Amino acid sequence: MPRPAAEFSMRFLRFWLLLDKLTGLPRREKTGMGIVVQKFGGTSVATAEKIHFASRKVIAAKASGHQVVVVVSAMGHTTDELINLARQVSPNPPKRELDQLLATGEQVTIALIAMAIHAQGHDAISFTGAQIGLITDAVHSKARIREIDKRRIIAELDAGKIVIVAGFQGINEHGDITTLGRGGSNASLVALGAVLNAEVCENYTDVDGVYTADPRIVPTARKIDRISYDEMMELSSVGAGVLQTRAVEFAKKYNVPIHVRNSGHDRPGTWIVAETSSMENIAVSGCALKKDLMRVSLKNVPDRPGIVARIFTAIAQANIVVDDIIQNVLDDGTANISFTVEHGDVADLKPVMEQLLAELGGAAAYEKDMAKVSVVGVGMKQAAGVAGTMFKALADQKINIQNISTSEIRISCLVSRADAENALRAVHTAFGLDQPPAA
Amino acid sequence: MPRPAAEFSMRFLRFWLLLDKLTGLPRREKTGMGIVVQKFGGTSVATAEKIHFASRKVIAAKASGHQVVVVVSAMGHTTDELINLARQVSPNPPKRELDQLLATGEQVTIALIAMAIHAQGHDAISFTGAQIGLITDAVHSKARIREIDKRRIIAELDAGKIVIVAGFQGINEHGDITTLGRGGSNASLVALGAVLNAEVCENYTDVDGVYTADPRIVPTARKIDRISYDEMMELSSVGAGVLQTRAVEFAKKYNVPIHVRNSGHDRPGTWIVAETSSMENIAVSGCALKKDLMRVSLKNVPDRPGIVARIFTAIAQANIVVDDIIQNVLDDGTANISFTVEHGDVADLKPVMEQLLAELGGAAAYEKDMAKVSVVGVGMKQAAGVAGTMFKALADQKINIQNISTSEIRISCLVSRADAENALRAVHTAFGLDQPPAA
Repeated sequence: MPRPAAEFSMRFLRFWLLLDKLTGLPRREKTGMGIVVQKFGGTSVATAEKIHFASRKVIAAKASGHQVVVVVSAMGHTTDELINLARQVSPNPPKRELDQLLATGEQVTIALIAMAIHAQGHDAISFTGAQIGLITDAVHSKARIREIDKRRIIAELDAGKIVIVAGFQGINEHGDITTLGRGGSNASLVALGAVLNAEVCENYTDVDGVYTADPRIVPTARKIDRISYDEMMELSSVGAGVLQTRAVEFAKKYNVPIHVRNSGHDRPGTWIVAETSSMENIAVSGCALKKDLMRVSLKNVPDRPGIVARIFTAIAQANIVVDDIIQNVLDDGTANISFTVEHGDVADLKPVMEQLLAELGGAAAYEKDMAKVSVVGVGMKQAAGVAGTMFKALADQKINIQNISTSEIRISCLVSRADAENALRAVHTAFGLDQPPAA
Repeated sequence: MPRPAAEFSMRFLRFWLLLDKLTGLPRREKTGMGIVVQKFGGTSVATAEKIHFASRKVIAAKASGHQVVVVVSAMGHTTDELINLARQVSPNPPKRELDQLLATGEQVTIALIAMAIHAQGHDAISFTGAQIGLITDAVHSKARIREIDKRRIIAELDAGKIVIVAGFQGINEHGDITTLGRGGSNASLVALGAVLNAEVCENYTDVDGVYTADPRIVPTARKIDRISYDEMMELSSVGAGVLQTRAVEFAKKYNVPIHVRNSGHDRPGTWIVAETSSMENIAVSGCALKKDLMRVSLKNVPDRPGIVARIFTAIAQANIVVDDIIQNVLDDGTANISFTVEHGDVADLKPVMEQLLAELGGAAAYEKDMAKVSVVGVGMKQAAGVAGTMFKALADQKINIQNISTSEIRISCLVSRADAENALRAVHTAFGLDQPPAA
């Protein structure tokens, strides 16, 4: 296992990027029965029939005495179809226009959900991101939420209506439509939960909840009943697909519980809540895999103060998240710097790197097909030997660890993409996640 | 031919309904090369290939030195497909939500046109109705334009960009999306032409221009090279499908020429312009047919002052256009009143009628399958015998005339739907429209 000569963490950069600057959010006072915000993902609204099915869940929440706000995604594969349409017209469409195009997907769904609720005899009204003043920054295709003008929502709720909101979208200060990037509908869900001081954000999906690992890779993975915000954030940031880091970050900041559940039945899913002392009894709550990473290596960059900051500030300004930064200082007054990015960011990254190299000198190399396996648990803070257990599990499988990064409640190992799934299964078993936790 | 005992015109009501109240439109001063506003209908943007084809026309206008604003409809049959989707969800969707749904159609097209122009190396930016502050009244599904905030459009034009605007849509004062009803994209075209003081509004369609009659019914119909606003308005109001009355009304008010032309080639189409003295040499410029009319007859309504106004105000408030009003006063102090509406308005009309009859007494009868054949020409003001020529042409075909209505430049005859197409052909021939006008 290689240990770099000089290693330092730039994780603050990463968190700075992930954090939505949600300002201007005076919260609503709770009065009587609370507000429930429900979100239905694309598979839960893929057909007219499913839209009626989802509407019945909405109406049930209203019938139980709650005020109900519903956030929806585009139907089924609509977003992919719109992207394909754009590609037919242009190989590299401007992001502003792509956002203008993609935002229609959710707008179709909100109208149809409102119609379905009406058809079932209840009153509903739909809003686009623009119509509820969901203001974001100006970064098209991965915008961050800044504020929501909740007045119209409150007025309609108080008039007895169910309010339907388009997820994934907002507008910037010029009125241009922006989209919130992958998992943007979840960001919409939790931001609405926060400004409306909701009792719970219900995230309806096609899975039963958050699992100890991806069940498609680890057949023995189990559904987790309750997990802390911090654990969920760490799991999300290292590849658990069900809920994005920034959505959970919001939820933690405003202490809104998220209930991840299956839209196909009424059984409870996974509650994501504030940490409790009993959670600390479990060293590792779950593990996750991030595939499709690329390692970027910069060779012979001048080893001067400010150079590293220059590099990563430029990358951050291009809204690219980097991780696993390693710096080796060489004898000749230069340094080698490597870091990982997701494959999807490489097209945006390359022009930034070329600019930097033209300015600083040195050379860049790109290594595809890396992966990262991680274990997460708040109990890790107290438990000894967690790292050792993980490294031994990988060593027993003859898996080479190319880098290690940790937080207080997470250990991650960078491995070859070819070893990734085997690594996840080995770690899942090593921490006893194949069996339910002791009562 | 029956002549009613008492007949009067309520055409003012009809015009009041058709007239968009376009206020707040200080016009732009012309500076240097002018603005061209182009509109592409649904068939002209039905596929990625057609979108590129349309984009080349846009770029050509820009290359010729103009500032270019483009108004687009939804692609191909998108609007019908969205309506079908709504019907799958609800038998009678709320109109606000239907507008929310339908407006996505044009939003898709604007983004794709902007992308196609970018892909061809030019700069373009797209706007929804909301984004250019196209404010309408609150009548969902047939809203009227009140004002357009042209500042953003002008700023982008002055920055060298081609501006793409979604036709058919706007927002009301609450920010709810409205749609402008049938031909709404043409209303958008001409309203933009008016506020931007455009040199010309180019209306690209899949036909070569305005014809002396519908060529699908009258094979000898010819393309008209130039026609006055008034003639076009009359033709539109009595069934010529190519351009809606209110769009032409705008164009006349602001003296913006409209050029109706085929998007498939570059040959000139029909210019719709202010009346010139030479136009008066032709008694009849064109004729048209309105099919699918229903005659509504109210029997034994009290013959008191104010009753007729009560009836037609209630109908107008439901945004239904009526025509061919006939009132027969009977000896018993009651009156029979009949009028025609389009079949499509009957569902909206019936509840209004029930309410009125409950209040006033009397009974209503509905006769389907009426049609109206009309001839239009500014020369009619000078020429004698136009009405006689028309009545004789119909009599020769043994077609019974059920009602006659006229304006200064139009004569219309209500006939049975079964006689309609035969009536149109007879009238077209009788006025010599089968041959080109004398030079």
